[in-house]
Amino acid sequence: MKRKGILFVLSGPSGAGKGTVLGRVIKEVGGLALSVSVTTRAPRVGEIDGIHYHFKTEDEFMSMVNNDEFLEYVAKFKNKYGTPKAQVREHLENGTDVILEIETKGAANIRRSFPEAVLVFITPSSYEELSRRLSQRGTEDEKVRALRLKIARTEYKSLRKYDYLAINDDLDECVKTVSAIITSERAKRKNNLELAEKLINIE
Amino acid sequence: MKRKGILFVLSGPSGAGKGTVLGRVIKEVGGLALSVSVTTRAPRVGEIDGIHYHFKTEDEFMSMVNNDEFLEYVAKFKNKYGTPKAQVREHLENGTDVILEIETKGAANIRRSFPEAVLVFITPSSYEELSRRLSQRGTEDEKVRALRLKIARTEYKSLRKYDYLAINDDLDECVKTVSAIITSERAKRKNNLELAEKLINIE
Repeated sequence: MKRKGILFVLSGPSGAGKGTVLGRVIKEVGGLALSVSVTTRAPRVGEIDGIHYHFKTEDEFMSMVNNDEFLEYVAKFKNKYGTPKAQVREHLENGTDVILEIETKGAANIRRSFPEAVLVFITPSSYEELSRRLSQRGTEDEKVRALRLKIARTEYKSLRKYDYLAINDDLDECVKTVSAIITSERAKRKNNLELAEKLINIE
Repeated sequence: MKRKGILFVLSGPSGAGKGTVLGRVIKEVGGLALSVSVTTRAPRVGEIDGIHYHFKTEDEFMSMVNNDEFLEYVAKFKNKYGTPKAQVREHLENGTDVILEIETKGAANIRRSFPEAVLVFITPSSYEELSRRLSQRGTEDEKVRALRLKIARTEYKSLRKYDYLAINDDLDECVKTVSAIITSERAKRKNNLELAEKLINIE
């Protein structure tokens, strides 16, 4: 009855602020392991194998794909990125909570592999706000923005798979919400069975 | 699809610090309506009728019982305590979240009437700590303390009915946990269906 780790998954459209929220939450809430992705791209200066990424050849990567070793994987430009199942499983078995940032497409796969995973969807409270933010980035042309909005609409379709909806209109509020989700999931009785049974069985 | 209020129920053995936690949580988390219990016991110094309790005579109380006006009621020592139904239902229908402090026996009744209620059990992390605290109160003789501990053991038996276990070894931590439970329950997709459906249905 040793406590298992909880798997937290953050998703949301580009421009929702997932990365910023994730960084802040990891600092504010202790005891969260990040999953190290596998990639086929070449290490950049300063990147260490096993810390920043697990660097693999195309063949090694495809062999992992064929062996169903990824929770999800995506191709970006000519490179592939994947989230290895084994590592996540190991953390959870050791009682360490894990947090992942994953595409909505991967969320269904997560549910299959980890039915107990806690799925959190991060989004501004409206499509208009998302659109406004993508405009303000200023680093991307109109075509890229339109593409991101189109992808966002697709991503919203999978919202029903998610347990929580963390609104990111205000960063501090959103960090507070995601941190609260982690704290409260840790307080669930089903995640404290050992203590609960100890108290129930007092003679 | 108008959002209904969420019903939060706090229970736990005498000496667990429920009252103190409840007071702090209400201050820290906004938008919680408190249900005021009806009781036949005499007011303690400083307790105000209609604020801390609705103080009633035994006859008045039994007439409410006969009129089915209680969501739940229990007898403890020689006193009776009841939660008036109408008040809670009205708040929830209006979309206001409600928080109740209720005996474990009452919690089972709540579950029957409100399957969606969120049940939180507050307790020190051990029976020894609970026992130590009851000793330190100093206001009660040994017989009362022993009785309270006996009741606590019974109360722990119903722990499996609860969704959350909020450990109160450190008051600040416990307040943080209960506040996080409220924040995260409010962020559940099922409690934000209107917004979720709006995002899903963007064309």
